[in-house]
Amino acid sequence: MSFTIIATWRMAFEGVSEATKILRDNGSASEAIETAIKCVEDNPLYTSVGYGGLPNNVGTVELDAAYMNGDTLGLGAVASIKDYANPVSIAKKLSEDRFNIFLVGSGAEAYAHTQGFERKNMLTQLSNKAWKERMKEIHEKNLSPYDGHDTVGMVVIDHNKSMVAATSTSGLFMKKPGRIGDSALPGSGYFVDSEIGGATATGLGEDIMKGCLSYEVVRLMEEGYTPQNAADKAVNDFSEKLKRKNGVVGAISLVCINNQGEWGVGTNVEFPFVVASDQHEPKIYISNNEDGKKTTYTIANL
Amino acid sequence: MSFTIIATWRMAFEGVSEATKILRDNGSASEAIETAIKCVEDNPLYTSVGYGGLPNNVGTVELDAAYMNGDTLGLGAVASIKDYANPVSIAKKLSEDRFNIFLVGSGAEAYAHTQGFERKNMLTQLSNKAWKERMKEIHEKNLSPYDGHDTVGMVVIDHNKSMVAATSTSGLFMKKPGRIGDSALPGSGYFVDSEIGGATATGLGEDIMKGCLSYEVVRLMEEGYTPQNAADKAVNDFSEKLKRKNGVVGAISLVCINNQGEWGVGTNVEFPFVVASDQHEPKIYISNNEDGKKTTYTIANL
Repeated sequence: MSFTIIATWRMAFEGVSEATKILRDNGSASEAIETAIKCVEDNPLYTSVGYGGLPNNVGTVELDAAYMNGDTLGLGAVASIKDYANPVSIAKKLSEDRFNIFLVGSGAEAYAHTQGFERKNMLTQLSNKAWKERMKEIHEKNLSPYDGHDTVGMVVIDHNKSMVAATSTSGLFMKKPGRIGDSALPGSGYFVDSEIGGATATGLGEDIMKGCLSYEVVRLMEEGYTPQNAADKAVNDFSEKLKRKNGVVGAISLVCINNQGEWGVGTNVEFPFVVASDQHEPKIYISNNEDGKKTTYTIANL
Repeated sequence: MSFTIIATWRMAFEGVSEATKILRDNGSASEAIETAIKCVEDNPLYTSVGYGGLPNNVGTVELDAAYMNGDTLGLGAVASIKDYANPVSIAKKLSEDRFNIFLVGSGAEAYAHTQGFERKNMLTQLSNKAWKERMKEIHEKNLSPYDGHDTVGMVVIDHNKSMVAATSTSGLFMKKPGRIGDSALPGSGYFVDSEIGGATATGLGEDIMKGCLSYEVVRLMEEGYTPQNAADKAVNDFSEKLKRKNGVVGAISLVCINNQGEWGVGTNVEFPFVVASDQHEPKIYISNNEDGKKTTYTIANL
C-alpha cells in the first residue's frame, strides 16, 4: 500500500507514527491526518499546539486549525477558538459543509458546542508559567513580545491517491487577543488538490500570508516543478521579494507532497520536519537554507 | 495624472466618484481607496456592507474588511467585528504593523477601541426588518437561508504607480455567528503587488477561498496575461474545476488592474462593476459570462 505523510517540526513524530500504522492498514488520508494532529494537540509538552499551547498577551490560549480535502477542495477552518480539545476535528467537520466553513471566536465555540465537541481548559500550569516568565522578561528587558509560532501542519497521500492537508496551532506567543496567522488561511498555511499535490507552512504567519505560499507551491508542482524545487523556489523567491519590498522577512518553512508521493521542503531558517511512507518508518530531518537558493537536510538523531 | 480605479458592484459608484476627485488632485491610492470604501460602508441603503449591513442568523451585524499595500505587501484585516463604523480603516491601520495584522471578533473590537475608532450600532431598522422577513420566509417556505454576499472590493493605481486593494462586507446574509468569507483572506478576496497588479473578488466566499482566486489573477498577470484574460482564465478554470470535483460552484466575480492601469473582469454570473480613470469619469458596467469562456460587458444606465 503506497502512502506518504510529511509534517512540520519534531513534535509531529509520535502523531506521524500513529498515522503510519493507519495508512499501512489501508486507512484513509483523512483518518490518518486527524489522528496525527490530535496526537500533537493532546500532548501538553508541545507548547505551540492544542493543550498546553502558549497563551496570548492576556494569558488565554486561543487556537487556530484547518483541514482541506484534496479530492473535493472542501475545507474547514477555525480561528481564535478557546477551550476545545481538538480544533482540527472541528475544522474537519466544517469542511463537509457548503456554507459557513470558516468560523472564528465565540461563533466557532458555539458551533463546536452544538456539534458535541469536548470543552477543555487548554491552559496548563506549564504554559501559564511560561507566560508569566515571559511577561516578566518583556518588562524587565524591554524585549519584543513575539516569539514562537510553531504550527503543526501535515500533508498526506493515501493508497487511493486521495490527499489531505491540515494544521493546528496556538499561534504567535503573546499575540494580541483575536490575532490569527496563516495556519487557518487557505492558500497561505495549507493547500491541497489531489490532482496535483499539497503543501503546508509554518513560521511568521503575518509574512507567509503576504505570499499565499502553500498555494504557490502547489501551483509550481502543477507547472511541473518537483516538490523540492517548488518548495525552494516559493520560499526563496518570496523571502527575497519581501526583504526587497519591506526590508525584513520572518521565518518561513514549507513542506509538500506531489500526487506521486514525492516530497520536498523549503525553509529560510533551521527547520526540523518528519516524513514517513510505505518505504520507511517515520524519520526526523533537519533542514537548512545554505545560500538563499537551496534547502539541504539530514536525518536527525531522536 | 494617470490613475485607474475599479470596484465591485453598482453600490461602489459614489465612493469611486469621491476617489476619482482625490486621484485627479494627485492624491494617493491609499487615501482614495479608504475614502471610497468608507463611503459605501457609511451608506445605510447598501445592505451588504458596513452600516445597515444584513445581519447573521441571530440578528447581529458582523463585518469583515481588509486592506493591502502593493508597494510593501503590508496587509491588515478584521473579521467578525461588531459595532465599528469603518472596518476598512481598522484594517488599514493594522496593515502598518509587522505582527498581529489580522484580528477577529472581540479581539478586533478591543484593538479598534484602543486605537480610538468610533463605535456604532451597525444594525439599521431597514436591515433588522429584512432579517425578520427573511427569518419568516425561511420558516414558512423551508428555504436555504443563505443568500446575498456582495462585498465591495476595490483596486487602485495612482500617479506614482502605487497600488492598493481593499474590501468590506457584512458577509453572507443569515450566516452563522463567527463565519468569515473570502473578503478578509489575503489571496482569496484580494491581492495586490505594485510590481504586477491587483485583484479583488466577490461572490460565495466559501468557494472563492478554495481557489485563492485573487492571488491567481495577479500571478497570471505576472505571467503576461492581460488583466481581462487573467480574470477570465482564473474564474472559468476554477469554476469548471470545482464543478467537476465538487458537483457545484457558487457565484464568483473578480475585477483586476495591472501595473499599467489596464483592467479586466471575470465572472460566472451577471455582475455590475465600476471603473474610473484619468481618461474618463466613473462608469457602471454590467458583465456576463456568455459561454463559460469569455466575460462580456456593456455600460449600464445609471
